[in-house]
This record gives sequence, structure tokens and C-alpha cells, in this order.
Amino acid sequence: MKLASRRAGGRDGQLVVVDTALSRFAPVPDIAPTLQSALDHWDEVEPLLRGISAALNTGKVPDARPFDPKDCVAPLPRAYHWVDGSAYVNPVELVRKARGADLLPSFWTDPLMYQGGSDDLLGACEDARFVSTEHGIDLEAEVAVITGDVPMGVTPEDAAKHIRLLMLVNDWSLRNLIPGELAKGFGFYQSKPATAFSPVAVTPDELGEHWKDGKVHRPLLSFVNDQRLGEPDAGVDMTFSFLQLIAHAARTRRLGAGAILGSGTVSNLDRTRGSSCLAEVRTLETIEHGAPRTPFLKFGDRIRIEMLDSSGRTIFGAIDQQVAQA
Amino acid sequence: MKLASRRAGGRDGQLVVVDTALSRFAPVPDIAPTLQSALDHWDEVEPLLRGISAALNTGKVPDARPFDPKDCVAPLPRAYHWVDGSAYVNPVELVRKARGADLLPSFWTDPLMYQGGSDDLLGACEDARFVSTEHGIDLEAEVAVITGDVPMGVTPEDAAKHIRLLMLVNDWSLRNLIPGELAKGFGFYQSKPATAFSPVAVTPDELGEHWKDGKVHRPLLSFVNDQRLGEPDAGVDMTFSFLQLIAHAARTRRLGAGAILGSGTVSNLDRTRGSSCLAEVRTLETIEHGAPRTPFLKFGDRIRIEMLDSSGRTIFGAIDQQVAQA
Repeated sequence: MKLASRRAGGRDGQLVVVDTALSRFAPVPDIAPTLQSALDHWDEVEPLLRGISAALNTGKVPDARPFDPKDCVAPLPRAYHWVDGSAYVNPVELVRKARGADLLPSFWTDPLMYQGGSDDLLGACEDARFVSTEHGIDLEAEVAVITGDVPMGVTPEDAAKHIRLLMLVNDWSLRNLIPGELAKGFGFYQSKPATAFSPVAVTPDELGEHWKDGKVHRPLLSFVNDQRLGEPDAGVDMTFSFLQLIAHAARTRRLGAGAILGSGTVSNLDRTRGSSCLAEVRTLETIEHGAPRTPFLKFGDRIRIEMLDSSGRTIFGAIDQQVAQA
Repeated sequence: MKLASRRAGGRDGQLVVVDTALSRFAPVPDIAPTLQSALDHWDEVEPLLRGISAALNTGKVPDARPFDPKDCVAPLPRAYHWVDGSAYVNPVELVRKARGADLLPSFWTDPLMYQGGSDDLLGACEDARFVSTEHGIDLEAEVAVITGDVPMGVTPEDAAKHIRLLMLVNDWSLRNLIPGELAKGFGFYQSKPATAFSPVAVTPDELGEHWKDGKVHRPLLSFVNDQRLGEPDAGVDMTFSFLQLIAHAARTRRLGAGAILGSGTVSNLDRTRGSSCLAEVRTLETIEHGAPRTPFLKFGDRIRIEMLDSSGRTIFGAIDQQVAQA
């Protein structure tokens, strides 16, 4: 089942069911007005939404309308919890190496997580607006899950049943603000402006065999101005699965329905797969040449993030954004 | 005007208007079902709520009912943004001194902020549940504002008009998890479990002359098991006003209606005013005696946080919580 939020109604958009091919959609105002509302009452609402989904996929919704990602806001245009892990530890080690710092051994056993702003989440085709290019504008291509209610102290084994939906993420970062913020010791804030999400969120079964052990086993494609940036496999070199990330997040707290957990920037040890952010590219250039050669993004640049199934069809639709001045 | 959310309806409670004395309340289902909904449409809704408030205060709501903070959830039981500053820099300097670390000079000009979980905010009288006392359970008494929509890049001067409501906060902290988390460089997460808020949120005018220059000029009282912990004045030694905190938060992002910004633990240089958290008490003991003498909280302990007006009447109602095992 694939769900999206159309730019209609109030701040949270209008929940719609989208067919697997992302060609047509059906509004479901009688089932749930918004995705958050559906997540709040998932047990009752899910079977009804799945009924619409099955009908859509078999052409049995006569008034289904053509789906256009440009009409969408983020699946959750605002959320009550957005926390991003760094599940791919390899690039973290790389960045530290480039600045001559060692990786704490705990990084391989204890996930890094930071909490992001969730009152302003961007739709897949919305412009990403920034104050200044001097801040070092960078994309970060990631995968994320949306959970239901998760009890405090959940185990990784029990975490699987609390995963409701999956999305792609562009975790916009302002690289030049990061060193100053991290030096203060409280983590990221100004350096992590509004995050963007794929047009649709999908239930895990839409991934078939590619969803396994709490990881998404498909390449994550990213492009800058139509040039390939990378295609690392999101299931490879993911040190912590989403099950472990959820257990880490819920160690001392409950998570409410609609909590979004991100994987962190996807990265493979196999360098031929490229990168999912410019910071990694620049770090590799620094290691090889002594200085970065690839600039950060400028106003007018476009980025694209997508994941295809084994037949080459888009799973989540593409995040396709232009960098713009605020 | 004073607003609360009663434990009724769905996950967000039921918005009610409370009289200034916190003695009676009136539900307002025809105006706005929840506080978030009121904040989403503040310009239209505020005059209507103020009408009810005026009628309540003059005894003109015949079916007003007795107000009991125990029936309340947090004013916003879940929010889209909860960010906490460290506006009282003096105690930050003190903690660093105790562990032999210098304060970065930027701490006096650039606010520290961390983002907290906002999908599970506790009501004033709800038990605070924790996994283990070994985590070092501590209260942190603070003041917070709730904003309307704030544009990116807002100036401190313009920030004032975006402040909708004020509350008290108990920013529960797990002290023994903090060093490990901060060493990882991404800030707090597991060390900052669910936060609690006062029974009512009040518009700034309820504070009269005590709301000035973006600061609350009244003592913040806190107690542990009915023993006074502190009564520092929230308007004294606040290095960054709420106006500056909002401008800092909005430097690279918009804030959505209902964003909560906290002051950080209130602390005065005048040591006779006591403290607003046990960590500060323990730090002062360490400086004086070489080791802390006051333990962190144990299951069954009670904390109380309150602020009185100059006539001794409660402004926000009391945060009055028991520490319990999860």
C-alpha cells in the first residue's frame, strides 16, 4: 500500500491512497482525513485503506485521478518526532579520519542519533530554501521508517511490528555551521534545516524480498543537476538496522504514532557505488588530493533522490528539489 | 487568558479555558477542539477564547465546572517542535568548572539549544516513569513559550509578536547517560526522556509587569519531597531572552504554530536563591566538599514546580509529579 498527502485541506494535507505504479490516486476522506489521523487509529484504518489500495491496483476505483507528485506535501507535513540515526558507520569513520580524529569504539555498538525539527517537513518537489550558500548547503539521501506507538524499552525483535511505513529522506544539512554547533556539545540545530521526504510512504510489503531484517535492500540513487552522485545499496554496510534504531530510540521513552526514524546518509564501503552526500565526496577528495574539489550546492541547483524496484519502477517516487534563496 | 487540555477526546486532549484563579473552567468545542487547533487558527480563535475567559472571570459562564489539574494532560500533549535553550549561562559555566573544563567564550553570545522529543509530553500531575534509578534521575525547572508561525530569519525585535503562550517545564534528565551521549558529539537523546508541563498555558498579559523584554520576572519555586530546592528569579541572570532564543531557533528554519521553546534550567548567581535541578546542587557540593552529597531522585520521590504572582497566587498551577518505575 502506498500513501501520500495532497496539498489540500489544512496544514497536514489530505490523505490519499496511490496505486503501486504511482499513476492514480483516490482520496479517502471517509476513512481518515490525514496520514497522522490514520496512524493514530491504524488498527481500524489500515484494513480499509488496504481495501482501497487493492481496488485501485485492479482498476476498480472508477473516479481515481492521475497522480502528480508535484501536488503532494510530505506524507507527514509535520510530525511529532523526527530522529535521524547514523546507521552507516563507515562514512562517519571516514569523515573523522579526514580531520585526524579517531572513531570512538562505541560507534560500532551504540547508534548515533540526533533529533530534527519536525514542524516543517518539505514535500518531494518543494523548493528547499536557505539563507545563504556560505552555510555549505548539502543533501543527504536516506531511508526512513514511520512507527506506530512504541512502548518504552522495546527490543529489536519486537520493534518490527511497530513499523508502519517507509519513505525516502533528503536530510538537508548546512555543513559550514556544523563544526561550530558540534563544538558547543549539544549537537545539531541550525545546521539541520527543514527535511524533505518522498512523495509516497509505503508499507513494508511493497518492498517484497527487499525488506529484510529491518533493512531496505535496494540501491538508493541520488543525482545533482542530473549527474549521478551515488547508488549505494541501503541494505549493505548498514551497521544498525531500523529494528536496532527503534530499540535505541525507545530505551528511555515511548514513541508516539507517527514517529519518523531516519537511517542516516546511506554509504557503502565499495567506493564505485558513489556517495549520498557531497560531504562524503569532499572527504574522499581531501584524502586523495589534500583538498576538496566538489563545491557545495548553490541556488538554482537541483537534486534528485529515488529508489527503483528490480524491474526499474520507482518505489517511493522521486525527491526532486531545487535549491532556492529564502 | 489561561488555557488547559483536559484528559478527554483523543490523544491531544480537549481544549478548555480556565479562569485566572484556576478555580473553574469552560470547554470550548465550538471554538477549537484542541490547543494545537487553536494555535493553527490563532487570529480567528483568540478573540473568541478571550471572550470566554472574560466571561469566566466575571462569573458569567453559568455551567463552568471546578478545575482540577489532575484531570489535565499537558497543554500540548504532543507538539511538532520542542527545543530547549540554556539561557542561564552561569550554571553551565559552573558545571564545566567542576569538571575542570573552560567555557567557550561563544557561550555568552550564541545560545546553546537541544531538541527534545515532543510526541510524548507529560501532564503536570502525571507520574514520570523511568527505566532505572541508575540513570541519575533529575528534574530541571524551567519556563517556556509557545509560538505561532515564525518566519525564517526573524529578528529578536520581531520575535515578540509570535509568542502566544507561556508555561512551566520540568525537563526531566538522566544525568548518568549524559556524559556518554555528549562524548558521541550528537547531543542529548536517551538522556532526555519525556518532558512535563504546567497544568495551564497563559497568554503573556496574564503576567502583567512581570513579563518584560522577553523574560519572566518572577521566582521559580521548586521542591523535592516538599523540601525547598530553589526559588531563583527567572528574569535574573537570563543571558538570552526568549526573543533571542526564538531568533536563534529561526535563523535557518521556519517554526510552525505550536513550537515550544524552553529557557533551560533557571539559575541565579545569588546562591541563596537555591537551584532548579539536583545537578547544580551536586556541582556546588563538589566544589565545596570535593564530592556531591545530595543523591539523584529515587522511585517514590515527588517534585513540585510552581510560580506565584506578587499576591501569592499560582500563575500556571503546579507541576507535581511522582517518580515511578516504567
